[in-house]
Amino acid sequence: MLRALLGIELPIIQAPMAGVQDRQLAIAVSNAGGLGSLPAAMLSPEALRTELRALKAATPKPFNVNFFCHVPPAPDPAREARWRAALSPYYAELGVAEGAPSVQRVPFDDELADVVAELAPPVISFHFGLPSPARLAKLKRTGAKILSSATTVEEARWLEARGADAIIAQGAEAGGHRGMFLTEDLTTQIGTLALVPQIVAATKLPVIAAGGIADARGIAAALALGAAGVQIGTAYMLCPEATTSAVHRAALVRAHHTAMTNVFTGRPARGIVNRLVRDLGPMSPIAPAFPLAAAAVAPLRAAAEKAGSGDFSPMWAGQNTSGCRPIGAAELTRDLAREL
Amino acid sequence: MLRALLGIELPIIQAPMAGVQDRQLAIAVSNAGGLGSLPAAMLSPEALRTELRALKAATPKPFNVNFFCHVPPAPDPAREARWRAALSPYYAELGVAEGAPSVQRVPFDDELADVVAELAPPVISFHFGLPSPARLAKLKRTGAKILSSATTVEEARWLEARGADAIIAQGAEAGGHRGMFLTEDLTTQIGTLALVPQIVAATKLPVIAAGGIADARGIAAALALGAAGVQIGTAYMLCPEATTSAVHRAALVRAHHTAMTNVFTGRPARGIVNRLVRDLGPMSPIAPAFPLAAAAVAPLRAAAEKAGSGDFSPMWAGQNTSGCRPIGAAELTRDLAREL
Repeated sequence: MLRALLGIELPIIQAPMAGVQDRQLAIAVSNAGGLGSLPAAMLSPEALRTELRALKAATPKPFNVNFFCHVPPAPDPAREARWRAALSPYYAELGVAEGAPSVQRVPFDDELADVVAELAPPVISFHFGLPSPARLAKLKRTGAKILSSATTVEEARWLEARGADAIIAQGAEAGGHRGMFLTEDLTTQIGTLALVPQIVAATKLPVIAAGGIADARGIAAALALGAAGVQIGTAYMLCPEATTSAVHRAALVRAHHTAMTNVFTGRPARGIVNRLVRDLGPMSPIAPAFPLAAAAVAPLRAAAEKAGSGDFSPMWAGQNTSGCRPIGAAELTRDLAREL
Repeated sequence: MLRALLGIELPIIQAPMAGVQDRQLAIAVSNAGGLGSLPAAMLSPEALRTELRALKAATPKPFNVNFFCHVPPAPDPAREARWRAALSPYYAELGVAEGAPSVQRVPFDDELADVVAELAPPVISFHFGLPSPARLAKLKRTGAKILSSATTVEEARWLEARGADAIIAQGAEAGGHRGMFLTEDLTTQIGTLALVPQIVAATKLPVIAAGGIADARGIAAALALGAAGVQIGTAYMLCPEATTSAVHRAALVRAHHTAMTNVFTGRPARGIVNRLVRDLGPMSPIAPAFPLAAAAVAPLRAAAEKAGSGDFSPMWAGQNTSGCRPIGAAELTRDLAREL
């Protein structure tokens, strides 16, 4: 059902991961029969056009492009000042200037929608809900299939009622930003094993399991729970086609654990526990609203990474990194699919 | 392998649940071919003897008896006073006296070990580690098989090295007390889908998956992950053989969510979010050490329950309550096993 809907051979979606991949990973996965994904949350309309054109030229297979559709927050200078004050010892320690406030992640808007309508990617996925009904209708007219993440049964029902074609059930194990959009209460965020069957029971749409799936056994488990497919991110992060930084790759290989933290962007996201998470988090009450927290951390991250340290880097990862291997994404995709 | 080890027909262990069951639930599950469990953490040696004798008389099948093996904390009058001060508005509101400090859960000790050695239950499980090597050796001489919960790979390796016969991999979805004993860091507590395959890979022992498993599909998923069996608690809580309170039963049926909270006992445990959890938790920095927090809450719970309210009751539950049905435990066990 999911394979027919998306035109793919394998019910495996490579999770879009802004910051650690560009089109190369997506191309490799799509060409291997899965659904490669291009993260577009940090792309300008021009960059999006370039990436989509290159993607279409590099694979005849379906692929997915992912956008965030959060509501941008109003600037809050007092909160920003408190956040920078909390970071000031690190600025001093690393000898860097604070850097100007900036917005590093933009929500899906009319300009991006125009590029998408022009280049008509076969699949479009969203995080944090769905775009406005008018924009969604415009995308659907291109024939694109629409996916979005649900972290609760309520969110799954909301997405179904508003026209999603399939639902990504994002369990708490998943790396990166929580897709939660109808609640800010982290206690509502439950594990994949508990979430998938409840969303399967609550909606009629195909359900894609995400979170904690790292190998063929995990895929078999997700399908046993009633999922029609899986979305896998973390396992792809060591692939040569990913742009994962050196500090991030090293952290994925080392013994580590992850936490849900808002210190890097202002929204809860799962990443490897490092110095900034330990010191100010994992959940900081003073971090500016998403995505504004990121700008003040950026110079610290850059300086630390230059010195070979991941102390201030968002190193997104899910709870199961046992599938991370430095092999080609096509080989990894085939290996994930070996029991299908 | 697990079935042969424990002498059971079905690889389904009914989770021991102190406070919501006695031997009746265990008898029904064991007679249906699963492994029924008697929670003994709140039993005196005399009560344990009575229960074990009655259990053996009521079923020829194997059953499990569960103990806690925490290290009792030193009394901390200042912390106790802070906790009672935080609770004082509720004492006033409900018109109850504070009640004396008391210890409601005792760790496994020589007296309990004597009763166990005398009555030789076929399976013994532990939470919070294992008893001392001498006590463990005494139990093993009776022929008992020893199970214990691991919440991390490190804990699983620790249990294997110290003589456990099988490991219960307790994912974060699970209801009740976290079995964690080598760490107090909740960010180390990962979902069942991520935990089970990592423990399967790290040890040679049979692994029993626990947390978020509510139906035959969940069991199939756990087995796909490499588990040899499952431990299921929440789904049994509405059974007539359980002693689950009326407020607790009602909360399990109503829409609700759970959180990991220490406000009821001092240790993190997963239960339904109610007034006390919302007001003082979910994790309170002032709650006395386990199990001392419970005594001060007890009179509030009693008064509220008498008035039909679960505002102050620990209503343990896992993240997946979709399997809770008011049917007999034998019927439920057979239904859970229907795809095996």
